[in-house]
Amino acid sequence: MSDKADLSKISLNQITTENWSLKEAIDGCERNEVPWISIWRHKLAEYGVKQTAAHLKQSGIKVSSLCRGGMFPAATKEERAKRIDDNKRAIEEAAEIGTDTLVLVCGPAPDKDLVQARKWVEEGIEAIIPHAEQHGIKLGIEPLHPMYAADRSVVNTLGQANALVQKYQSKQVGVVVDVFHVWWDPELAAEIEAAKGTILGFHVSDWKVPILDMFKGRSMMGDGAIDIYGMRKQVEAAGYHGPIEVEIMNQELWDRPGDDVLKLMKERFVEHV
Amino acid sequence: MSDKADLSKISLNQITTENWSLKEAIDGCERNEVPWISIWRHKLAEYGVKQTAAHLKQSGIKVSSLCRGGMFPAATKEERAKRIDDNKRAIEEAAEIGTDTLVLVCGPAPDKDLVQARKWVEEGIEAIIPHAEQHGIKLGIEPLHPMYAADRSVVNTLGQANALVQKYQSKQVGVVVDVFHVWWDPELAAEIEAAKGTILGFHVSDWKVPILDMFKGRSMMGDGAIDIYGMRKQVEAAGYHGPIEVEIMNQELWDRPGDDVLKLMKERFVEHV
Repeated sequence: MSDKADLSKISLNQITTENWSLKEAIDGCERNEVPWISIWRHKLAEYGVKQTAAHLKQSGIKVSSLCRGGMFPAATKEERAKRIDDNKRAIEEAAEIGTDTLVLVCGPAPDKDLVQARKWVEEGIEAIIPHAEQHGIKLGIEPLHPMYAADRSVVNTLGQANALVQKYQSKQVGVVVDVFHVWWDPELAAEIEAAKGTILGFHVSDWKVPILDMFKGRSMMGDGAIDIYGMRKQVEAAGYHGPIEVEIMNQELWDRPGDDVLKLMKERFVEHV
Repeated sequence: MSDKADLSKISLNQITTENWSLKEAIDGCERNEVPWISIWRHKLAEYGVKQTAAHLKQSGIKVSSLCRGGMFPAATKEERAKRIDDNKRAIEEAAEIGTDTLVLVCGPAPDKDLVQARKWVEEGIEAIIPHAEQHGIKLGIEPLHPMYAADRSVVNTLGQANALVQKYQSKQVGVVVDVFHVWWDPELAAEIEAAKGTILGFHVSDWKVPILDMFKGRSMMGDGAIDIYGMRKQVEAAGYHGPIEVEIMNQELWDRPGDDVLKLMKERFVEHV
C-alpha cells in the first residue's frame, strides 16, 4: 500500500479501552499521541460534562463524536417522547464537549413489527433535527450489522441509512460507516458512493472467525476478514476525510493495559487502515 | 390467526435432531407423522444412498431437499473444479433419494475479496446447471445471514440471490428462504415478491436474544423475534406452497430426546408458522 492511513486522523473510540474512565482515556490519548477521542455518554455522565470539556481543552484532544443517541422505537407514545427528550440532551452534551457529531444507534423493535419500528426511527430523527441544527450538531445514522436487528437497531444496511438521509433533505443528517457492520453487504460499494458528501464518520475494527461473542466479537484491524484499506479508499472517494475511530469491543483487549492497546491500534492503523 | 400452517407440509430438517442418525430420523418422522425430511449429505454418506432410498420408499417419508451443495469459491482453479465435481455428485445423490431440490450454501471467500468470491459463486452455479437439468434437480440458492459472510456464504441477501437467479434465466435455479437468515432485511417484502415463482424452499426457526453461539444460535418457532407467520403469508403470496422445513441448530434441543423435539416442533408449527 502506497498511501498509509494518516495517524493525525486516528481516534480512540473509548469502548476500545472499556476499563479506563473517561479521564484515564483522555490522559491515555495525550500520552500516546492519539489526537482524537470518541466519548460514550455513560462515561461522560460519570466524569461530568464541564470537567470533561475542561480536560479536553487542556489536553488538546479533539472529540470525533459522542456515542450515542437513537433508541427511538418503544411500545408507548410516552416512552417514545422520553427517548426523543433524551436525544435532545445528547445533542446538548455533544455541543458542550465540542464535537460536531452525535452517533445514532437507532434501537430495536419493541415487538415483531420491524416496519413500524423503522417508521418510529424515521419520526424520531425528524423530531430532533431542529434541536441538532440549533446546536450545530450533525446526526450520524449508523447502520448496525443485521445480527443486531433484534436487540440494538432496526437500521441494518447503509442503503437503508442513505434512504433515511435522502428523506430529510437536511444538512444536519448523515451516515456513519463502521466496517464491522457493513463489510458483508453486496451493495456496499454502490451505497458508499451514494452516501457521497453525507458521511459523518468512519469506524474500524475487524471480523475474526470464529465470533465467540455477539457484542464483544470485534478484533483488532488486520486480524480478520475485512478489507479495511479498500473501504477507506471508497469512503475517501465519497468525500470523507475526517477522523477514523477505532471501535473494538473485545474482552481480551479490555484486559490488557490501555497504553498497550493504544500502541497496538496505532501500529495496526498504519498497516491495515 | 385464522389460517394455521398445514401439518402436511412440515419437514424435519435433520440437523434439528443432530444426534439421530439418518435411519433414526426417518423412523422418527414416521413414528411422529412428520411427512417430510430434509437430508444432510454427511448423514446420507453414513447410511448409504441406496439404503436411504429403500428406507424412504418403505416409510413413505418424502424428501423436501438435500442439504447441501455450494461452497464454490476457492483460491485455486483446481480446487474450484473439485468443488464443482462435488456439486455434481450432490445433484446425483439428490436424484437418487427422490428429492427435486438441492440447497446451495454458496461458500465464503478464501481471502478478503468478496467481489471475486461472488463471481466464483456465479460461475460455479452456472457450471452445474446442465447437470441439474439432466437429473431433474432444482438448485436452491439460500442466502445466509450476513453474520456468516466470513465463514459460510458470500450470498447474504435475498436480493442478491434473486439477482443471480435472474442472470441464469434457467428454470433449474431458484431461491430458498430461511426466516433466520433474512428476517432483518429492510428489503425483504419486496424481494420475496420479486422471487415470485422461483422459491424452492421455506425454512423456519426463530431468533432469540441473546444469541450465545453463532452456529447453534437458532431457537424453536415462537421463542424469538421473527414474525414467521407474516413471512409464510408473503412466501405463499409469491407462489410457494411446498414443504416447510424446521431447521434448528440448538444444543439444548439436540440434548433432548428426538421424539420430544418432533412433538414440540409440530405444536409450534401450528401455532407460529
